[in-house]
Amino acid sequence: MTQPNMDTFVSLCKRRGFVFQSSEIYGGIGGFWDYGPLGVELKNNIKRNWWRAMVQLRDDVVGIETSIVMNPRVWEASGHIQTFADPMVDCKSCKHRFRTDDLLPVADASAPGRCPDCGGELTESRMFNLMFKTFVGPVEGDASTVYLRPETAQGMFVNFENVLTTTRRKLPFGIAQIGRSFRNEITPGNFIFRDREFEQMEMEFFVMPGTDEEWHDRWIEDRFNWWTGLGVRKDTLRIREHTKEELSHYSKRTVDIEYDFPFGCFSEVEGIANRTDFDLKQHEQFAGRTLRYFDEASNQQIVPYVIEPAMGVDRCFLTVLIDAYAEEEVRGEKRVLLRLPHELAPIKVAVLPLSRNEQLVPPARRVLDLVRPQFMTQYDDAQSIGRRYRRQDEIGTPFGVTIDFETLEDEAVTIRERDSMEQTRVPITKLVPVLRERLPG
Amino acid sequence: MTQPNMDTFVSLCKRRGFVFQSSEIYGGIGGFWDYGPLGVELKNNIKRNWWRAMVQLRDDVVGIETSIVMNPRVWEASGHIQTFADPMVDCKSCKHRFRTDDLLPVADASAPGRCPDCGGELTESRMFNLMFKTFVGPVEGDASTVYLRPETAQGMFVNFENVLTTTRRKLPFGIAQIGRSFRNEITPGNFIFRDREFEQMEMEFFVMPGTDEEWHDRWIEDRFNWWTGLGVRKDTLRIREHTKEELSHYSKRTVDIEYDFPFGCFSEVEGIANRTDFDLKQHEQFAGRTLRYFDEASNQQIVPYVIEPAMGVDRCFLTVLIDAYAEEEVRGEKRVLLRLPHELAPIKVAVLPLSRNEQLVPPARRVLDLVRPQFMTQYDDAQSIGRRYRRQDEIGTPFGVTIDFETLEDEAVTIRERDSMEQTRVPITKLVPVLRERLPG
Repeated sequence: MTQPNMDTFVSLCKRRGFVFQSSEIYGGIGGFWDYGPLGVELKNNIKRNWWRAMVQLRDDVVGIETSIVMNPRVWEASGHIQTFADPMVDCKSCKHRFRTDDLLPVADASAPGRCPDCGGELTESRMFNLMFKTFVGPVEGDASTVYLRPETAQGMFVNFENVLTTTRRKLPFGIAQIGRSFRNEITPGNFIFRDREFEQMEMEFFVMPGTDEEWHDRWIEDRFNWWTGLGVRKDTLRIREHTKEELSHYSKRTVDIEYDFPFGCFSEVEGIANRTDFDLKQHEQFAGRTLRYFDEASNQQIVPYVIEPAMGVDRCFLTVLIDAYAEEEVRGEKRVLLRLPHELAPIKVAVLPLSRNEQLVPPARRVLDLVRPQFMTQYDDAQSIGRRYRRQDEIGTPFGVTIDFETLEDEAVTIRERDSMEQTRVPITKLVPVLRERLPG
Repeated sequence: MTQPNMDTFVSLCKRRGFVFQSSEIYGGIGGFWDYGPLGVELKNNIKRNWWRAMVQLRDDVVGIETSIVMNPRVWEASGHIQTFADPMVDCKSCKHRFRTDDLLPVADASAPGRCPDCGGELTESRMFNLMFKTFVGPVEGDASTVYLRPETAQGMFVNFENVLTTTRRKLPFGIAQIGRSFRNEITPGNFIFRDREFEQMEMEFFVMPGTDEEWHDRWIEDRFNWWTGLGVRKDTLRIREHTKEELSHYSKRTVDIEYDFPFGCFSEVEGIANRTDFDLKQHEQFAGRTLRYFDEASNQQIVPYVIEPAMGVDRCFLTVLIDAYAEEEVRGEKRVLLRLPHELAPIKVAVLPLSRNEQLVPPARRVLDLVRPQFMTQYDDAQSIGRRYRRQDEIGTPFGVTIDFETLEDEAVTIRERDSMEQTRVPITKLVPVLRERLPG
């Protein structure tokens, strides 16, 4: 399989309407991206797939959706106000600011070095909080300061009791959420890999203490299988254990699923953490109330442990698109295609009259009207049929339906399959059931 | 039909897991709400329904998804920095702040009155901007100030050219988006009706100038039909024309669809505005580039006019829930039910073994495994079957499937329909197709 180089890939994303720079006509804004007509469909399909796997198909997980702005006490309790920070240094002469990590081994906190931009002297390293802050109400100041959430997870922890009560759950059970989060990254980059605004899919799975290590292993396996089930090739994925030094303040053990990106290294696409009882206990203390589960077997109130599979939609988007990218030679010409799994493809069916001949328009519109209510469909009648097939290949459309002059005689159409390019003749009356069989869900 | 009083309704929403106060364990935060396990499903179903109607089923509309934080020049061009503000007065003695509008006729800009809280003297009225601001990058200050979008619409305008180019569209065509927006409202209220963080569904429909008034009328009709198609009763909806005084700065004509809420008045649930060419022209000027459409017929570059149907997901959620609420007397007992349209119901099917008898568990789990991959399903075996039916009625579940001792003999189950309470016996092998017929989509 081919991995595209990043430039080719970013250009395809823009040219075909997957991803645009945010506010591009104003020169953009670093770390923020927009999803175009095809991008939003792919993104929605990824989210739907995750929700189906994590919520609909499971007995033991429910969803929620919480606000991005929360009571700021949440971030005191979670530790984000104190510890969610990167060490930074400033240049005393050109005033540029850098992540200390990026300058290593040039600079460290004890021995500041010289500015890579101008050679000036650097300040000592200081902590810079990654949360965006804003103000609620008419007065700006400390009393009205709130934050844009840097993770969706706290929405689940503060609703632990609400969910427990309203759904009458027993341990183990999970709470899942999909939603935007914000981190004021100093060095966003690698296209949509590290953004300042991004979308997360997180699930907090509450278990009896003592069963946490076993559940952690089960979730690592389960999540790895989810990725390969999406069609991502096994040899491009790996599992990496966090070292003691890189563990988050709340974590007993964290494992990353990493993908071999074309920008040069295996990088995290999902983290599965054992958050222990850290968050619930912190909220108990800061909110001054108990957040416990009554265990009938032991007749005790206990604070559950938490296993958290957490991933970014944008990184998943990048991964599945890159992994689906392929170049082939077909009859001496290069064919670019996205071998996206059917359920993720933005457009499922392209309806393609052989030409703009006026006799072909009525049956083509009739086919469109049949197919569109069932599947995301695109109608395309511009340029030669060969070019239109290539256009659909390049955006990953699994099936093209061609209406030709024979259709006028036999009331049948041709289905062309993206990967094999095989063509099958099907009566119009059977078209939807035949497509439905090959496009479940 | 019954309309619930707001207290009863808010309490149902909390008790059954539709809506919780955000950060409730910390005393909440005004104007921010969370959606519980049932709420998030209903919200997703509303969004899916809108997307299907506005994007999937139409030839002339595509979707996008843009970032919440945009280049701040966008809000200079759109007029939001200058004009998106409410007039406010402060009390000189107790320092409380009020919307000038709320104090009328007590106070106006020319003749400030006395504070309603302490009787102190009020300042003159000043404008207070409703956009939340934050800072990007490590330095806080004017140069790094950005805003949380107060509407999704500008995401479409700044991407007009990107969408036009990548989708090769002809006028008229539309760009649709669903996403969160933020307004620093001084007086949020009426439950989730007026929030500081909310979700919008907006569509910008670009048309040839001169055809805008006709398209405006078509969209008003189309959108009204969407609401009644959702099952909202016609006599609880009305269409109201904006007066000249209340028109937004960009609007030539705006029409609201209003719902008769139990908090005492018809209030806006959707606005359909003729935004003219205001936004595109402003962006042309501020970005210093043309944002035009080449019209082949007249051989001219033109700036399209825009018709915008814009609504809030949260208000739609409130409307459909209130409108679906019903109380009935059944055999001398009160039955509370939500007559939600099937496509919006959070749970489609409840699987209910008659009791926890161990003989019933295996067939009940077998039925669950059949149904769950097809529909959002809930398994409930706690308490009497009568109470479980009532629980499902109260959350709007269209179908209950009961597994009883006869099932052990005849491999059949009983389907109970929510509204009529009619029961039908169906073989397990036919269950999914029978449900599928009554739960399309």
